Parts: sequence; C-alpha cells; structure tokens
Amino acid sequence: MRRAFRGLTGWRGRARAAAAGGPLPGFREVVFLSHVNDPAVTPPFPGDPEFRITPVRSVAADGFALNEVRQGEHTGSHYDAPCHFNEGEASADLLDAADFVRRAAVVDVRRQAAASADYEISVDDLRRHERRHGKIPAGAAVLGLTGWSARWGTPAYANADAAGALHQPGFGVDAARWLLDERGAGVLGTDTFSPEASADTGFRVSSMLLRGNRIALSNLAALDRMPPAGGWIVVGGPRNAAGTGAPCTVFGLIPARP
Amino acid sequence: MRRAFRGLTGWRGRARAAAAGGPLPGFREVVFLSHVNDPAVTPPFPGDPEFRITPVRSVAADGFALNEVRQGEHTGSHYDAPCHFNEGEASADLLDAADFVRRAAVVDVRRQAAASADYEISVDDLRRHERRHGKIPAGAAVLGLTGWSARWGTPAYANADAAGALHQPGFGVDAARWLLDERGAGVLGTDTFSPEASADTGFRVSSMLLRGNRIALSNLAALDRMPPAGGWIVVGGPRNAAGTGAPCTVFGLIPARP
Repeated sequence: MRRAFRGLTGWRGRARAAAAGGPLPGFREVVFLSHVNDPAVTPPFPGDPEFRITPVRSVAADGFALNEVRQGEHTGSHYDAPCHFNEGEASADLLDAADFVRRAAVVDVRRQAAASADYEISVDDLRRHERRHGKIPAGAAVLGLTGWSARWGTPAYANADAAGALHQPGFGVDAARWLLDERGAGVLGTDTFSPEASADTGFRVSSMLLRGNRIALSNLAALDRMPPAGGWIVVGGPRNAAGTGAPCTVFGLIPARP
Repeated sequence: MRRAFRGLTGWRGRARAAAAGGPLPGFREVVFLSHVNDPAVTPPFPGDPEFRITPVRSVAADGFALNEVRQGEHTGSHYDAPCHFNEGEASADLLDAADFVRRAAVVDVRRQAAASADYEISVDDLRRHERRHGKIPAGAAVLGLTGWSARWGTPAYANADAAGALHQPGFGVDAARWLLDERGAGVLGTDTFSPEASADTGFRVSSMLLRGNRIALSNLAALDRMPPAGGWIVVGGPRNAAGTGAPCTVFGLIPARP
C-alpha cells in the first residue's frame, strides 16, 4: 500500500536511480550493520536517558512531517568518541573523516557466546581468525560477531540476572590490548551493548580503546552478512559539539572479490 | 593540551591507524561535507523544535561522559526521508543502504548566488555543468554549491528580511524536474536550509523530489572540496522508526584520479 500510488516522476526516478546508487567501485553490495532506532524496540542501557520520538508536524496539518527526538548519545546502534571514557581525549567533533572509514575484520565467536553469555573474546580467538582469514590490517575495525543481535528488542538482549547484573559477551582485556598494541586496531565493535563483556563492570576495554582517534561501536547488527576479511565500514552518525558519541548508521561494504 | 598526554597504547595505536583508516580503494581522500551539530552555532530553521545538548554524566563524577540530545529531525546538516513532504512515501527506516551511497555531481553557482540571494539554479546552469564536466550519471546526488556555508552560524545564513522572509538560493523547479526526469537524480542537496530557494515557499522542489527512494540533503558544508564530477558521497545518520530524516554526517569521497 505504501508505494501503491506514485506519480510518473517517482517511478522513473526510482527505476533509473537503481543503476547508480549503491556499491562503490570495487564493492558488490552495501548493507546496514546497525539497527533502526525505535523507542518501542531499542533495548535501553540501564541508567541511560529516556528515548522518545515525538511527532510534532504532519503533512496533513502542516504540509510536512517532522519528529522531535530526545535521547542519550549512546542509544541503539552508536559510536563512542574517545571522551566517552577518558578526560582530555577527543570529543566527536574533533575526530577526522578518515576515523569513520575503516577496513573491517569480523571475528565470529557465536559458538562460544552461545555456550557462555559471559564469553570474553580471547587472543586465541583472534589468532585463529588470522590463521583462516589473514592478518588483521593496521587501523582496522575489529568487530565481534557474538550472535547477540538476534536477541534485539527482547529481555534476552540485556540478559539481566535476578540481581540485575547483565550477561553479554564481548572482547576480553587481553584480546583488546593485543589488538591495539600488536595490530594497531582503530575501532572495536560488537553486536552487544559494549565492546567489553558485561562481566567487565569496570569498562576496562572501553577505557583502553578510547584514546587518540579510536572509536567504539555498539549494538551492531547483521555482522554475519560481512566477510571475515576484506570488507570496509563507514560509520555515519552526527558529530555533536563536545559529543561523546551518537546513534549512527553503520554501512558495511562487501568487496566484489572476496 | 588535549592530546598532550597519552599512554603508550594510545600513541602506538594512533600512528599505526593512520596507515589503514581513511580513503577506500580508488579514493585519495575522505572529507566531511556536513557541519558539526552545535546548539551555539547551528542556525535554527524557523519553527523547528529547540535544539539542546545537555551533559548528564561526566568521567569525573560517573566514570563516563554522556549528553542528552533534544532536537528536531531536521536540525543542522541532515537528510530528508520521502515522508517528510509526502504521505504514503517511505520513512527513514524503509530506505535501503544503497540509497545513502551515491555518485556526486557538484554544481557551482557561487557567482550567481553572490549576485542574488534568491538565485534559483536553472536548467542552463546544469547544461553548462555537463558541458564542462560530463553528463550527470543516473542516480547521482546533485549538490548545489551556493557558497552559503560561509555564512553558517551568522544571521546572514537565514538571511531574513525585515518582514521575516528568508532569502537563500537553491534549485529552481524546472531544474529539479529536469534532474529527476531526464537524469534520474537520486538526491538533491544544497549548502542552504533546503533543496529549493527560499522564495519557493510552497517547497515544490522538496515535494517533487521526495518520492520513491530519493532523499534531500540540507545545510551541507565544504562542497568546494569535492570535484565537480567523479566523487561519491555516503550519507550517515541514524534511521529512526517512522523517521522523517535525521541529522547526519555526510562523507565526500574524492577519487584518486580526477
């Protein structure tokens, strides 16, 4: 129904646009690696500001439609700027454009995370990834595919126990240190609330990661659509003045030749 | 001062990251084509919801910093989803990833806009662009470089007259229709509040444009850094449920070979 009626300009434009939007040269597909922001679905991180989207204008009444959005900077799929965890480090508006465009390495730990919700990605996991898919390139976004995005919108995502403690997998401290020091990683991301497993209540991975020009990505989606190596990501979100991060759309670019 | 102190991990990570973040294969540079979102600077569009960024957590007091953001979906540099002006057309969450990744044609009308703030980009301007830089490819983002971004943060940006009417340049109706029907444009964007000149108070260009999978871009920046032809853009902003658009970072990809 939504697209049942459309004027000539609409159809012609759409048909032609299909020819040239989309994959950049050298890539065969671009995919979303982020969830839609929806207050009815997006799992709230405990203690975060309330997330509301309120319609304030409509085409029928005003000639155009517009919503007001009220949210914390770390709502839904989002990036963290270095100042999120470290005083004196860069806010979102001080990052460079190249900081948001990275080669991607997708480390699949779905089997381990299915066996233990508190699973911490280890150096062994990373070495196994490299044996199969090649060395993680300097500056890469290393993305942990835990399978958690299948739980999005349900209580099993936060996975809180009776005492309220969360149980989600993520990068272990040793693995994060290895990626930063030995591979020069530029981004760590997961399909959970945070780069670290939730058992790391001191957020040691985030604190170590968020220095210089490095960012974190959280609540990612569809990481299984990316190749383990050879893809790129573009992290697209607003850059707020003194911003600690922002909700974003993350684009995954899948290379034409694997 | 901001980066005066940093642990070993930070410096090593930064130095190495420089090697692999940044330009995608085939491109020599990635640049921001959008402004920072800053309530102290971002010119408000008349009648839009108030824009506020409020710090609610700090590293000193809470161990991490976080702001709450309250804004309309069309604040600062932003994209418009089709439903912004047309009932029954797609909201932000129904667009495809490829809709946000487009070849770019940058049409320079700075001279004309300097002579008349109400200047409307014409079919003649577009034909002149094509004679010099080649045919605008199907599905392209056609971006009007009016020079208005130099006025960002000042009253000269809105450029209201004594009666409160705005005076900004933009695409004329005939030029927009030609781009959609004859060139299959996928995006129209400007470095002003709106794709149309503000003299078009009926928003006829937006209404015509925002159908199918097409989007508008407003309040763009640094369009003079892009080549007139051969570049690409990636439009990165959140995708809200039933969203009419969102503040975004627009990346400009400058090809290695012009």
